[in-house]
Amino acid sequence: MPFKDILQTVVDNVDGAVGAVVMGYDGIAIDDFIKTENSFDLQLLTAEYAAVLKEVKGTAEVLKSGLLQEVAISTERSTAVARVINEDYFVLLVIAMGGNFGKGRFYLRREAPKLAEALQ
Amino acid sequence: MPFKDILQTVVDNVDGAVGAVVMGYDGIAIDDFIKTENSFDLQLLTAEYAAVLKEVKGTAEVLKSGLLQEVAISTERSTAVARVINEDYFVLLVIAMGGNFGKGRFYLRREAPKLAEALQ
Repeated sequence: MPFKDILQTVVDNVDGAVGAVVMGYDGIAIDDFIKTENSFDLQLLTAEYAAVLKEVKGTAEVLKSGLLQEVAISTERSTAVARVINEDYFVLLVIAMGGNFGKGRFYLRREAPKLAEALQ
Repeated sequence: MPFKDILQTVVDNVDGAVGAVVMGYDGIAIDDFIKTENSFDLQLLTAEYAAVLKEVKGTAEVLKSGLLQEVAISTERSTAVARVINEDYFVLLVIAMGGNFGKGRFYLRREAPKLAEALQ
C-alpha cells in the first residue's frame, strides 16, 4: 500500500485529525496526507518537531529507558503525535483541539508496521 | 496543600505511576514524590527532559501553535508525561510500561492548578 493511502487511513479514522506525514529525522518528508480544510502549516510544524524528536531519541538512549516509541506534544490549538517507524523515520499526526487523541495513538500504532514495510 | 501531597495524590491514583516531580525549566526540582519500589532514576530522567521541554516550548511559540500544555514521551520501558504549570515550572509524571496513561494525563490536568497556586 502506498504511503499516502496508509496516512489517509489514519487521518480519516481520527476525529479532528488535520493531516499526517512520514518524515526522516533530518526533517525531510517522504509523503503526507493533509485535509484541505485546515489552516495548519503541517510541513513547517513537522520539520520543527523533527529536530525535537531527534533530541528526545538521543535522550532516551542516554537514559537507557529503552527505544523511543512515541512523542505527543499538546498546545492550546492542537496535538501532534509522532510515532517512531524505524531508526530513520517517524510518522506524525496532527489533531486539532478537541479531537480524539486516544484514537490517534491507536491508529498510528496500528499503521506504523505497514509504513515500516513500505519503507523497505 | 504542600507540593508533596499534591504529587502523591497523582501518583497514588494512577496505575503504574512510579513518581512525580515539580521542576523548573532550568532542570532544578522543587519537590518530588517517588514510590520506593522502583528502579527509575527519576531525578536524572526529569533533568534530561527539562532541556527537551524547554526546546519544545520555544518551538511551540515559534510555530504560533499556542501555549504549550503537555508533552508525553513513551519508550519501551515507560511513559513520561509533563504538564506545564506556568512560565517557569512543569510537573512530570513517570508511568511504567502498561500503566494507565489516560488517567495520568487526567490527574495532571486536574492537579496542575493546585500546583500553580502552591507556587505563588
